[in-house]
Amino acid sequence: MPSPDDAAHPHNAASAVDGSPKEPNHLIAACAFSETERAAVYRAIETRRDVRDQFRSDPLPEDLIRRLLEAAHHAPSVGFMQPWNFILVRQAATRDRVWQAFNQANEEAALMFDAGKRAKYQRLKLEGIRKAPLSICITCDTQRAGPVVLGRTHNPATDVYSTVCAVQNLWLAARAEGVGVGWVSIFHEDAIKTILNIPEHVKIVAWLCVGYVDELYDMPELAVKGWRDRLPLDELIFEEGWQADDKES
Amino acid sequence: MPSPDDAAHPHNAASAVDGSPKEPNHLIAACAFSETERAAVYRAIETRRDVRDQFRSDPLPEDLIRRLLEAAHHAPSVGFMQPWNFILVRQAATRDRVWQAFNQANEEAALMFDAGKRAKYQRLKLEGIRKAPLSICITCDTQRAGPVVLGRTHNPATDVYSTVCAVQNLWLAARAEGVGVGWVSIFHEDAIKTILNIPEHVKIVAWLCVGYVDELYDMPELAVKGWRDRLPLDELIFEEGWQADDKES
Repeated sequence: MPSPDDAAHPHNAASAVDGSPKEPNHLIAACAFSETERAAVYRAIETRRDVRDQFRSDPLPEDLIRRLLEAAHHAPSVGFMQPWNFILVRQAATRDRVWQAFNQANEEAALMFDAGKRAKYQRLKLEGIRKAPLSICITCDTQRAGPVVLGRTHNPATDVYSTVCAVQNLWLAARAEGVGVGWVSIFHEDAIKTILNIPEHVKIVAWLCVGYVDELYDMPELAVKGWRDRLPLDELIFEEGWQADDKES
Repeated sequence: MPSPDDAAHPHNAASAVDGSPKEPNHLIAACAFSETERAAVYRAIETRRDVRDQFRSDPLPEDLIRRLLEAAHHAPSVGFMQPWNFILVRQAATRDRVWQAFNQANEEAALMFDAGKRAKYQRLKLEGIRKAPLSICITCDTQRAGPVVLGRTHNPATDVYSTVCAVQNLWLAARAEGVGVGWVSIFHEDAIKTILNIPEHVKIVAWLCVGYVDELYDMPELAVKGWRDRLPLDELIFEEGWQADDKES
Protein backbone atom coordinates (compact mmCIF):
# COMPACT_ATOMS: atom_id res chain seq x y z
CA MET A 1 0.00 0.00 0.00
CA PRO A 2 2.71 2.56 0.86
CA SER A 3 4.16 4.21 -2.20
CA PRO A 4 7.94 4.16 -2.72
CA ASP A 5 8.46 7.70 -1.56
CA ASP A 6 6.47 7.49 1.64
CA ALA A 7 9.72 7.24 3.60
CA ALA A 8 10.51 10.75 2.44
CA HIS A 9 7.82 12.06 4.78
CA PRO A 10 9.36 12.46 8.22
CA HIS A 11 6.22 11.40 10.04
CA ASN A 12 6.18 8.08 8.24
CA ALA A 13 9.77 6.99 7.89
CA ALA A 14 9.58 4.57 10.79
CA SER A 15 6.49 2.76 9.63
CA ALA A 16 7.64 2.70 6.01
CA VAL A 17 10.75 0.85 7.09
CA ASP A 18 8.87 -2.00 8.69
CA GLY A 19 5.93 -1.62 6.39
CA SER A 20 5.32 -5.29 5.68
CA PRO A 21 1.88 -6.64 6.64
CA LYS A 22 1.80 -8.04 10.15
CA GLU A 23 -0.29 -11.19 10.17
CA PRO A 24 -2.68 -12.06 11.56
CA ASN A 25 -3.89 -8.76 13.05
CA HIS A 26 -4.51 -7.13 9.64
CA LEU A 27 -2.69 -3.93 10.67
CA ILE A 28 -0.41 -2.59 7.97
CA ALA A 29 1.74 0.52 7.67
CA ALA A 30 -0.33 3.60 6.91
CA CYS A 31 1.87 6.40 5.66
CA ALA A 32 1.01 9.76 4.24
CA PHE A 33 0.70 9.65 0.48
CA SER A 34 3.45 11.07 -1.71
CA GLU A 35 3.21 14.76 -2.56
CA THR A 36 1.89 13.94 -6.04
CA GLU A 37 -0.73 11.58 -4.66
CA ARG A 38 -1.86 14.05 -2.02
CA ALA A 39 -2.19 16.75 -4.64
CA ALA A 40 -4.38 14.44 -6.71
CA VAL A 41 -6.74 13.82 -3.80
CA TYR A 42 -7.01 17.55 -3.11
CA ARG A 43 -7.45 18.26 -6.82
CA ALA A 44 -10.43 15.88 -6.97
CA ILE A 45 -11.95 17.53 -3.91
CA GLU A 46 -11.39 21.10 -5.10
CA THR A 47 -12.37 20.74 -8.77
CA ARG A 48 -15.42 18.49 -8.31
CA ARG A 49 -18.56 20.27 -9.51
CA ASP A 50 -22.31 19.73 -9.40
CA VAL A 51 -22.92 19.38 -13.13
CA ARG A 52 -26.22 20.30 -14.71
CA ASP A 53 -25.50 21.01 -18.36
CA GLN A 54 -21.98 20.05 -19.48
CA PHE A 55 -22.74 16.35 -20.07
CA ARG A 56 -21.68 14.65 -23.29
CA SER A 57 -24.12 12.15 -24.72
CA ASP A 58 -21.73 9.21 -25.30
CA PRO A 59 -22.30 6.31 -22.91
CA LEU A 60 -19.81 5.48 -20.17
CA PRO A 61 -17.83 2.23 -20.48
CA GLU A 62 -19.06 -0.51 -18.16
CA ASP A 63 -15.67 -0.91 -16.49
CA LEU A 64 -15.64 2.78 -15.63
CA ILE A 65 -19.15 2.59 -14.14
CA ARG A 66 -17.98 -0.39 -12.12
CA ARG A 67 -15.03 1.57 -10.72
CA LEU A 68 -17.38 4.36 -9.65
CA LEU A 69 -19.67 1.89 -7.89
CA GLU A 70 -16.70 0.17 -6.21
CA ALA A 71 -15.64 3.58 -4.93
CA ALA A 72 -19.12 4.17 -3.54
CA HIS A 73 -19.18 0.70 -1.99
CA HIS A 74 -15.95 1.50 -0.11
CA ALA A 75 -17.64 4.30 1.82
CA PRO A 76 -17.74 4.13 5.59
CA SER A 77 -21.01 2.82 6.97
CA VAL A 78 -22.42 2.69 10.47
CA GLY A 79 -21.91 -0.81 11.89
CA PHE A 80 -20.56 -1.78 8.43
CA MET A 81 -24.24 -1.74 7.46
CA GLN A 82 -23.60 -0.91 3.78
CA PRO A 83 -27.24 0.15 3.42
CA TRP A 84 -26.91 1.36 -0.15
CA ASN A 85 -28.24 0.11 -3.47
CA PHE A 86 -27.36 1.54 -6.87
CA ILE A 87 -30.12 1.61 -9.47
CA LEU A 88 -28.67 2.32 -12.91
CA VAL A 89 -31.17 4.06 -15.16
CA ARG A 90 -30.19 4.35 -18.80
CA GLN A 91 -33.53 4.12 -20.62
CA ALA A 92 -34.58 7.48 -21.98
CA ALA A 93 -38.25 6.75 -21.29
CA THR A 94 -37.57 6.20 -17.59
CA ARG A 95 -35.38 9.28 -17.35
CA ASP A 96 -38.10 11.28 -19.04
CA ARG A 97 -40.66 10.19 -16.43
CA VAL A 98 -38.23 11.20 -13.69
CA TRP A 99 -37.68 14.55 -15.39
CA GLN A 100 -41.46 15.12 -15.40
CA ALA A 101 -41.45 14.50 -11.64
CA PHE A 102 -38.57 16.93 -11.24
CA ASN A 103 -40.27 19.53 -13.40
CA GLN A 104 -43.48 19.46 -11.39
CA ALA A 105 -41.56 19.79 -8.12
CA ASN A 106 -39.40 22.53 -9.57
CA GLU A 107 -42.47 24.60 -10.46
CA GLU A 108 -43.64 24.20 -6.88
CA ALA A 109 -40.18 25.21 -5.66
CA ALA A 110 -40.15 28.39 -7.75
CA LEU A 111 -43.32 29.56 -6.00
CA MET A 112 -41.61 29.29 -2.61
CA PHE A 113 -39.17 32.11 -3.44
CA ASP A 114 -40.19 35.73 -3.25
CA ALA A 115 -40.81 37.46 -6.54
CA GLY A 116 -37.31 38.94 -6.78
CA LYS A 117 -35.51 35.64 -6.42
CA ARG A 118 -38.12 33.63 -8.34
CA ALA A 119 -37.17 34.98 -11.75
CA LYS A 120 -33.52 34.29 -11.06
CA TYR A 121 -34.37 30.80 -9.81
CA GLN A 122 -36.33 30.03 -12.94
CA ARG A 123 -33.39 30.98 -15.14
CA LEU A 124 -31.13 28.37 -13.52
CA LYS A 125 -30.81 24.92 -15.07
CA LEU A 126 -30.84 22.59 -12.09
CA GLU A 127 -30.57 19.10 -13.54
CA GLY A 128 -29.26 17.00 -16.42
CA ILE A 129 -31.66 14.05 -16.11
CA ARG A 130 -32.39 13.83 -19.82
CA LYS A 131 -29.04 15.10 -21.10
CA ALA A 132 -26.70 12.81 -19.14
CA PRO A 133 -26.66 9.26 -20.58
CA LEU A 134 -26.78 7.60 -17.16
CA SER A 135 -28.67 8.26 -13.96
CA ILE A 136 -27.85 6.45 -10.73
CA CYS A 137 -30.48 6.38 -8.00
CA ILE A 138 -28.69 5.69 -4.70
CA THR A 139 -30.94 4.36 -1.97
CA CYS A 140 -30.71 3.48 1.72
CA ASP A 141 -32.27 0.26 3.00
CA THR A 142 -33.20 1.18 6.56
CA GLN A 143 -33.68 -2.49 7.52
CA ARG A 144 -30.38 -3.86 6.30
CA ALA A 145 -28.33 -5.59 9.03
CA GLY A 146 -31.36 -6.08 11.26
CA PRO A 147 -33.20 -4.09 13.92
CA VAL A 148 -30.19 -3.08 16.07
CA VAL A 149 -27.19 -1.70 14.21
CA LEU A 150 -23.88 -1.01 15.94
CA GLY A 151 -23.33 2.76 16.10
CA ARG A 152 -26.88 3.57 14.98
CA THR A 153 -28.47 3.07 18.39
CA HIS A 154 -28.65 6.79 19.23
CA ASN A 155 -29.10 8.34 15.80
CA PRO A 156 -31.18 6.33 13.33
CA ALA A 157 -30.25 8.72 10.50
CA THR A 158 -26.68 7.38 10.47
CA ASP A 159 -27.78 4.86 7.85
CA VAL A 160 -28.57 7.73 5.51
CA TYR A 161 -25.30 9.44 6.50
CA SER A 162 -23.45 6.31 5.38
CA THR A 163 -25.24 6.41 2.05
CA VAL A 164 -24.27 10.05 1.54
CA CYS A 165 -20.63 9.06 2.08
CA ALA A 166 -21.06 6.58 -0.77
CA VAL A 167 -22.39 9.38 -2.98
CA GLN A 168 -19.40 11.58 -2.21
CA ASN A 169 -16.92 8.76 -2.87
CA LEU A 170 -18.53 8.15 -6.26
CA TRP A 171 -18.50 11.86 -7.04
CA LEU A 172 -14.78 12.25 -6.34
CA ALA A 173 -13.88 9.10 -8.28
CA ALA A 174 -15.95 10.43 -11.18
CA ARG A 175 -14.04 13.71 -11.15
CA ALA A 176 -10.77 11.78 -11.46
CA GLU A 177 -12.25 9.84 -14.40
CA GLY A 178 -13.28 12.98 -16.28
CA VAL A 179 -16.91 12.23 -15.53
CA GLY A 180 -19.36 14.84 -14.32
CA VAL A 181 -22.01 14.19 -11.68
CA GLY A 182 -25.06 16.24 -10.80
CA TRP A 183 -27.11 15.55 -7.67
CA VAL A 184 -30.83 16.19 -8.16
CA SER A 185 -32.95 16.55 -5.03
CA ILE A 186 -35.97 18.49 -6.29
CA PHE A 187 -38.71 15.85 -6.47
CA HIS A 188 -41.32 14.18 -4.31
CA GLU A 189 -39.64 10.99 -3.12
CA ASP A 190 -42.83 8.95 -3.60
CA ALA A 191 -43.02 9.93 -7.27
CA ILE A 192 -39.58 8.45 -7.97
CA LYS A 193 -40.22 5.43 -5.76
CA THR A 194 -43.29 4.65 -7.84
CA ILE A 195 -41.39 4.95 -11.13
CA LEU A 196 -38.58 2.64 -9.93
CA ASN A 197 -40.75 0.31 -7.80
CA ILE A 198 -38.75 1.02 -4.65
CA PRO A 199 -40.11 -0.58 -1.44
CA GLU A 200 -41.54 1.36 1.49
CA HIS A 201 -38.59 0.83 3.87
CA VAL A 202 -36.01 2.03 1.34
CA LYS A 203 -35.19 5.74 1.13
CA ILE A 204 -33.98 7.59 -1.94
CA VAL A 205 -30.87 9.51 -0.90
CA ALA A 206 -29.64 10.80 -4.25
CA TRP A 207 -30.54 10.96 -7.91
CA LEU A 208 -27.27 11.38 -9.76
CA CYS A 209 -26.92 12.41 -13.40
CA VAL A 210 -23.66 10.98 -14.74
CA GLY A 211 -21.77 11.50 -17.98
CA TYR A 212 -18.47 12.52 -19.52
CA VAL A 213 -17.71 16.23 -19.42
CA ASP A 214 -15.20 18.23 -21.43
CA GLU A 215 -15.54 21.35 -19.33
CA LEU A 216 -16.38 22.21 -15.76
CA TYR A 217 -16.84 25.52 -13.99
CA ASP A 218 -13.77 26.80 -12.16
CA MET A 219 -15.95 27.58 -9.13
CA PRO A 220 -19.38 26.34 -7.97
CA GLU A 221 -22.00 27.12 -10.61
CA LEU A 222 -24.25 28.91 -8.12
CA ALA A 223 -21.38 31.30 -7.41
CA VAL A 224 -20.72 31.79 -11.14
CA LYS A 225 -24.41 32.59 -11.64
CA GLY A 226 -24.50 35.03 -8.73
CA TRP A 227 -26.86 33.01 -6.56
CA ARG A 228 -24.60 32.66 -3.49
CA ASP A 229 -20.90 33.04 -2.72
CA ARG A 230 -18.45 30.82 -0.90
CA LEU A 231 -18.34 31.67 2.81
CA PRO A 232 -15.00 32.55 4.43
CA LEU A 233 -13.74 29.36 6.08
CA ASP A 234 -12.35 31.30 9.05
CA GLU A 235 -15.89 32.22 10.09
CA LEU A 236 -16.91 28.57 10.21
CA ILE A 237 -14.14 27.33 12.52
CA PHE A 238 -14.63 27.47 16.28
CA GLU A 239 -12.24 26.50 19.06
CA GLU A 240 -13.34 24.30 21.96
CA GLY A 241 -17.03 25.19 21.70
CA TRP A 242 -19.65 27.19 19.79
CA GLN A 243 -18.34 30.74 19.61
CA ALA A 244 -21.19 32.79 18.17
CA ASP A 245 -24.94 32.77 18.56
CA ASP A 246 -25.64 35.51 16.07
CA LYS A 247 -23.35 34.44 13.24
CA GLU A 248 -24.61 34.81 9.65
CA SER A 249 -27.21 32.15 9.10
CA MET B 1 -5.98 22.34 -13.89
CA PRO B 2 -5.32 19.59 -16.50
CA SER B 3 -2.11 17.71 -15.83
CA PRO B 4 0.48 17.39 -18.59
CA ASP B 5 -0.43 13.82 -19.47
CA ASP B 6 -4.17 14.31 -19.70
CA ALA B 7 -3.89 14.31 -23.46
CA ALA B 8 -2.79 10.68 -23.27
CA HIS B 9 -6.37 9.75 -22.34
CA PRO B 10 -8.35 9.36 -25.56
CA HIS B 11 -11.52 10.83 -24.12
CA ASN B 12 -9.78 14.05 -23.24
CA ALA B 13 -7.36 14.80 -26.01
CA ALA B 14 -9.64 17.36 -27.62
CA SER B 15 -10.28 19.38 -24.51
CA ALA B 16 -6.64 19.18 -23.41
CA VAL B 17 -5.65 20.82 -26.67
CA ASP B 18 -7.82 23.88 -26.16
CA GLY B 19 -7.64 23.69 -22.39
CA SER B 20 -7.10 27.36 -21.70
CA PRO B 21 -9.71 29.04 -19.51
CA LYS B 22 -12.51 30.63 -21.51
CA GLU B 23 -13.41 33.93 -19.96
CA PRO B 24 -15.85 35.13 -18.85
CA ASN B 25 -18.05 32.04 -18.52
CA HIS B 26 -15.77 30.31 -15.99
CA LEU B 27 -15.85 27.02 -17.93
CA ILE B 28 -12.45 25.36 -18.16
CA ALA B 29 -11.24 22.07 -19.61
CA ALA B 30 -12.08 19.13 -17.34
CA CYS B 31 -10.05 16.10 -18.30
CA ALA B 32 -9.68 12.78 -16.60
CA PHE B 33 -6.75 12.75 -14.20
CA SER B 34 -3.51 11.01 -15.13
CA GLU B 35 -3.29 7.32 -14.27
CA THR B 36 -1.13 8.10 -11.22
CA GLU B 37 -3.54 10.73 -9.99
CA ARG B 38 -6.56 8.49 -10.49
CA ALA B 39 -4.84 5.71 -8.58
CA ALA B 40 -4.21 8.10 -5.70
CA VAL B 41 -7.88 9.05 -5.48
CA TYR B 42 -8.93 5.39 -5.49
CA ARG B 43 -6.21 4.55 -2.96
CA ALA B 44 -7.57 7.17 -0.55
CA ILE B 45 -11.08 5.80 -1.01
CA GLU B 46 -10.10 2.15 -0.61
CA THR B 47 -7.65 2.43 2.28
CA ARG B 48 -9.56 4.95 4.41
CA ARG B 49 -10.53 3.39 7.73
CA ASP B 50 -12.72 4.26 10.70
CA VAL B 51 -9.99 4.50 13.34
CA ARG B 52 -10.66 3.80 16.99
CA ASP B 53 -7.34 2.88 18.55
CA GLN B 54 -4.34 3.47 16.27
CA PHE B 55 -3.95 7.19 17.05
CA ARG B 56 -0.57 8.63 17.98
CA SER B 57 -0.58 11.28 20.68
CA ASP B 58 1.50 13.95 18.93
CA PRO B 59 -0.52 17.00 17.88
CA LEU B 60 -1.26 17.73 14.23
CA PRO B 61 0.40 20.79 12.65
CA GLU B 62 -1.94 23.73 12.21
CA ASP B 63 -1.35 23.91 8.46
CA LEU B 64 -2.36 20.27 8.09
CA ILE B 65 -5.55 20.83 10.09
CA ARG B 66 -6.28 23.79 7.83
CA ARG B 67 -5.89 21.63 4.72
CA LEU B 68 -8.36 19.12 6.13
CA LEU B 69 -10.89 21.86 6.88
CA GLU B 70 -10.41 23.38 3.42
CA ALA B 71 -11.16 19.95 1.95
CA ALA B 72 -14.33 19.73 4.03
CA HIS B 73 -15.32 23.26 3.03
CA HIS B 74 -15.07 22.26 -0.64
CA ALA B 75 -17.86 19.72 -0.26
CA PRO B 76 -20.99 20.08 -2.36
CA SER B 77 -23.87 21.73 -0.54
CA VAL B 78 -27.52 22.12 -1.42
CA GLY B 79 -28.08 25.62 -2.81
CA PHE B 80 -24.40 26.33 -1.96
CA MET B 81 -25.72 26.56 1.61
CA GLN B 82 -22.42 25.51 3.25
CA PRO B 83 -24.31 24.74 6.46
CA TRP B 84 -21.29 23.35 8.31
CA ASN B 85 -19.25 24.55 11.25
CA PHE B 86 -16.09 22.92 12.55
CA ILE B 87 -15.55 22.96 16.31
CA LEU B 88 -11.97 21.96 17.13
CA VAL B 89 -11.72 20.34 20.55
CA ARG B 90 -8.21 19.82 21.86
CA GLN B 91 -8.61 20.25 25.63
CA ALA B 92 -8.39 16.93 27.41
CA ALA B 93 -10.98 18.01 29.98
CA THR B 94 -13.57 18.67 27.27
CA ARG B 95 -12.79 15.42 25.49
CA ASP B 96 -13.13 13.59 28.76
CA ARG B 97 -16.63 15.02 29.28
CA VAL B 98 -17.57 13.94 25.79
CA TRP B 99 -16.16 10.48 26.47
CA GLN B 100 -18.35 10.22 29.58
CA ALA B 101 -21.36 11.03 27.37
CA PHE B 102 -20.26 8.37 24.90
CA ASN B 103 -19.70 5.83 27.65
CA GLN B 104 -23.17 6.28 29.10
CA ALA B 105 -24.77 5.92 25.69
CA ASN B 106 -22.59 2.94 24.87
CA GLU B 107 -23.79 1.11 27.98
CA GLU B 108 -27.36 1.77 26.86
CA ALA B 109 -26.46 0.52 23.39
CA ALA B 110 -25.01 -2.75 24.70
CA LEU B 111 -28.35 -3.56 26.33
CA MET B 112 -30.12 -3.29 22.97
CA PHE B 113 -28.29 -6.32 21.57
CA ASP B 114 -29.35 -9.83 22.48
CA ALA B 115 -27.14 -11.66 24.96
CA GLY B 116 -25.10 -13.45 22.29
CA LYS B 117 -24.10 -10.29 20.47
CA ARG B 118 -23.82 -8.17 23.61
CA ALA B 119 -20.61 -9.76 24.87
CA LYS B 120 -19.04 -9.35 21.44
CA TYR B 121 -20.24 -5.74 21.27
CA GLN B 122 -18.73 -4.95 24.66
CA ARG B 123 -15.33 -6.24 23.54
CA LEU B 124 -15.15 -3.76 20.66
CA LYS B 125 -13.40 -0.42 21.12
CA LEU B 126 -15.66 2.03 19.33
CA GLU B 127 -14.00 5.43 19.81
CA GLY B 128 -10.73 7.27 20.30
CA ILE B 129 -12.08 10.41 21.95
CA ARG B 130 -9.44 10.52 24.68
CA LYS B 131 -6.60 8.93 22.73
CA ALA B 132 -6.66 11.09 19.59
CA PRO B 133 -5.17 14.54 20.23
CA LEU B 134 -7.88 16.36 18.28
CA SER B 135 -11.63 16.02 18.01
CA ILE B 136 -13.65 17.89 15.40
CA CYS B 137 -17.37 18.31 15.96
CA ILE B 138 -18.98 18.99 12.58
CA THR B 139 -22.37 20.63 12.78
CA CYS B 140 -25.18 21.65 10.42
CA ASP B 141 -26.84 25.05 10.81
CA THR B 142 -30.35 24.38 9.56
CA GLN B 143 -31.09 28.11 9.25
CA ARG B 144 -28.09 29.14 7.19
CA ALA B 145 -28.98 30.80 3.88
CA GLY B 146 -32.50 31.64 5.02
CA PRO B 147 -35.89 29.96 5.09
CA VAL B 148 -36.03 28.78 1.45
CA VAL B 149 -32.92 27.07 0.13
CA LEU B 150 -32.49 26.18 -3.54
CA GLY B 151 -32.65 22.39 -3.91
CA ARG B 152 -33.83 21.84 -0.34
CA THR B 153 -37.46 22.63 -1.02
CA HIS B 154 -38.58 18.99 -1.20
CA ASN B 155 -36.17 17.31 1.21
CA PRO B 156 -35.18 19.38 4.25
CA ALA B 157 -32.54 16.80 5.21
CA THR B 158 -30.36 17.81 2.28
CA ASP B 159 -28.63 20.31 4.57
CA VAL B 160 -27.42 17.41 6.70
CA TYR B 161 -26.50 15.47 3.54
CA SER B 162 -24.26 18.37 2.53
CA THR B 163 -22.57 18.28 5.91
CA VAL B 164 -21.92 14.55 5.57
CA CYS B 165 -20.20 15.25 2.24
CA ALA B 166 -17.91 17.62 4.13
CA VAL B 167 -17.10 14.85 6.61
CA GLN B 168 -16.22 12.44 3.82
CA ASN B 169 -14.02 15.01 2.06
CA LEU B 170 -12.12 15.61 5.30
CA TRP B 171 -11.78 11.87 5.89
CA LEU B 172 -10.26 11.20 2.47
CA ALA B 173 -7.89 14.16 2.72
CA ALA B 174 -6.82 12.89 6.13
CA ARG B 175 -6.02 9.46 4.69
CA ALA B 176 -3.75 11.09 2.13
CA GLU B 177 -2.02 13.02 4.94
CA GLY B 178 -1.35 9.88 6.99
CA VAL B 179 -3.98 10.98 9.50
CA GLY B 180 -6.60 8.65 10.92
CA VAL B 181 -10.21 9.65 11.52
CA GLY B 182 -12.85 7.90 13.59
CA TRP B 183 -16.51 8.90 13.44
CA VAL B 184 -18.28 8.57 16.80
CA SER B 185 -22.09 8.54 16.74
CA ILE B 186 -22.96 6.81 20.01
CA PHE B 187 -24.15 9.66 22.21
CA HIS B 188 -27.26 11.65 23.02
CA GLU B 189 -26.98 14.73 20.85
CA ASP B 190 -28.23 17.03 23.61
CA ALA B 191 -25.44 15.90 25.94
CA ILE B 192 -22.77 17.03 23.48
CA LYS B 193 -24.67 20.20 22.59
CA THR B 194 -24.66 21.14 26.27
CA ILE B 195 -20.91 20.54 26.61
CA LEU B 196 -20.09 22.63 23.52
CA ASN B 197 -22.86 25.24 23.95
CA ILE B 198 -24.37 24.51 20.54
CA PRO B 199 -27.62 26.37 19.72
CA GLU B 200 -30.98 24.68 19.29
CA HIS B 201 -31.20 25.06 15.49
CA VAL B 202 -27.77 23.54 14.90
CA LYS B 203 -27.46 19.77 14.52
CA ILE B 204 -24.41 17.69 15.38
CA VAL B 205 -23.66 15.56 12.35
CA ALA B 206 -20.33 13.99 13.32
CA TRP B 207 -17.87 13.76 16.18
CA LEU B 208 -14.53 12.97 14.58
CA CYS B 209 -11.45 11.75 16.44
CA VAL B 210 -8.37 12.84 14.50
CA GLY B 211 -4.66 12.03 14.84
CA TYR B 212 -1.64 10.64 13.07
CA VAL B 213 -1.60 6.90 12.57
CA ASP B 214 1.31 4.61 11.77
CA GLU B 215 -0.88 1.62 10.98
CA LEU B 216 -4.35 0.99 9.64
CA TYR B 217 -6.35 -2.18 9.16
CA ASP B 218 -6.20 -3.63 5.67
CA MET B 219 -9.98 -4.09 5.73
CA PRO B 220 -12.78 -2.50 7.81
CA GLU B 221 -12.19 -3.18 11.50
CA LEU B 222 -15.67 -4.65 11.99
CA ALA B 223 -14.80 -7.25 9.33
CA VAL B 224 -11.44 -7.97 10.96
CA LYS B 225 -13.20 -8.46 14.29
CA GLY B 226 -15.83 -10.76 12.80
CA TRP B 227 -18.78 -8.45 13.38
CA ARG B 228 -19.97 -8.14 9.77
CA ASP B 229 -18.52 -8.83 6.32
CA ARG B 230 -18.42 -6.74 3.17
CA LEU B 231 -21.47 -7.41 0.98
CA PRO B 232 -20.95 -8.52 -2.64
CA LEU B 233 -21.30 -5.38 -4.76
CA ASP B 234 -23.11 -7.29 -7.51
CA GLU B 235 -26.06 -7.86 -5.20
CA LEU B 236 -26.41 -4.13 -4.59
CA ILE B 237 -26.62 -3.03 -8.22
CA PHE B 238 -29.98 -2.95 -9.99
CA GLU B 239 -30.80 -2.07 -13.59
CA GLU B 240 -33.60 0.36 -14.47
CA GLY B 241 -35.56 -0.25 -11.27
CA TRP B 242 -35.68 -2.09 -7.93
CA GLN B 243 -35.11 -5.74 -8.74
CA ALA B 244 -35.72 -7.62 -5.50
CA ASP B 245 -38.16 -7.26 -2.64
CA ASP B 246 -36.73 -10.07 -0.54
CA LYS B 247 -33.02 -9.31 -0.86
CA GLU B 248 -30.85 -9.76 2.24
CA SER B 249 -31.67 -6.91 4.55
